Amino acid sequence: MLEKLERINVLYDIYGDLLTERQREVIVLYYLNDYSLGEISEHYQVSRQAVHDMIKRSVELLEKLEEKLGIYQGYFFRKEVLNQAMELLSPGELTEKNIEKLKIILGELYRENEGE
Amino acid sequence: MLEKLERINVLYDIYGDLLTERQREVIVLYYLNDYSLGEISEHYQVSRQAVHDMIKRSVELLEKLEEKLGIYQGYFFRKEVLNQAMELLSPGELTEKNIEKLKIILGELYRENEGE
Repeated sequence: MLEKLERINVLYDIYGDLLTERQREVIVLYYLNDYSLGEISEHYQVSRQAVHDMIKRSVELLEKLEEKLGIYQGYFFRKEVLNQAMELLSPGELTEKNIEKLKIILGELYRENEGE
Repeated sequence: MLEKLERINVLYDIYGDLLTERQREVIVLYYLNDYSLGEISEHYQVSRQAVHDMIKRSVELLEKLEEKLGIYQGYFFRKEVLNQAMELLSPGELTEKNIEKLKIILGELYRENEGE
């Protein structure tokens, strides 16, 4: 659940601007502020089922945007690869072998950037 | 004009999936296949003004998506910075000064990735 929460949190950060105000609100209330379905349904004066459906559709939209645009996936790929590169540049680490590794890593970043 | 065309081409590659089928069609016909407003208006049996408005709205939507998500901007930033990094790794280039430059460059990439 924590992993799902983190994922929704990041997807919301990236794509939240493309949601409607209501879609943003239910995600913030339910996932970020930990309100219950019952509390949100009282707040909007709609059924719990309606709130459940709204939340579900909002998350599906975030996932659909990620499927089409892949910003989140690219972010994690780059983060991991850049961490590897920075380790190789630590003092005393820059052997000839590590320079070769660094070239490979930069090549990976380049190809990812070109969408290859 | 060529610069604008290139920009629309890349934005279309990135965000085209988020447009409606009709919006995609007019962009492909007008910008990528170089049809005239007259030809497109005949094809759809609508006025030239209607075609003009459709094209305008479609491009505005692409630009709005870029404004909110910045995939295109990030792509060019990374391309430029990665090119600099690869030059520094060319044979014979890896002086101590260049290693420092490389660290700075990787730090820039890291911060850009974190949205800083």
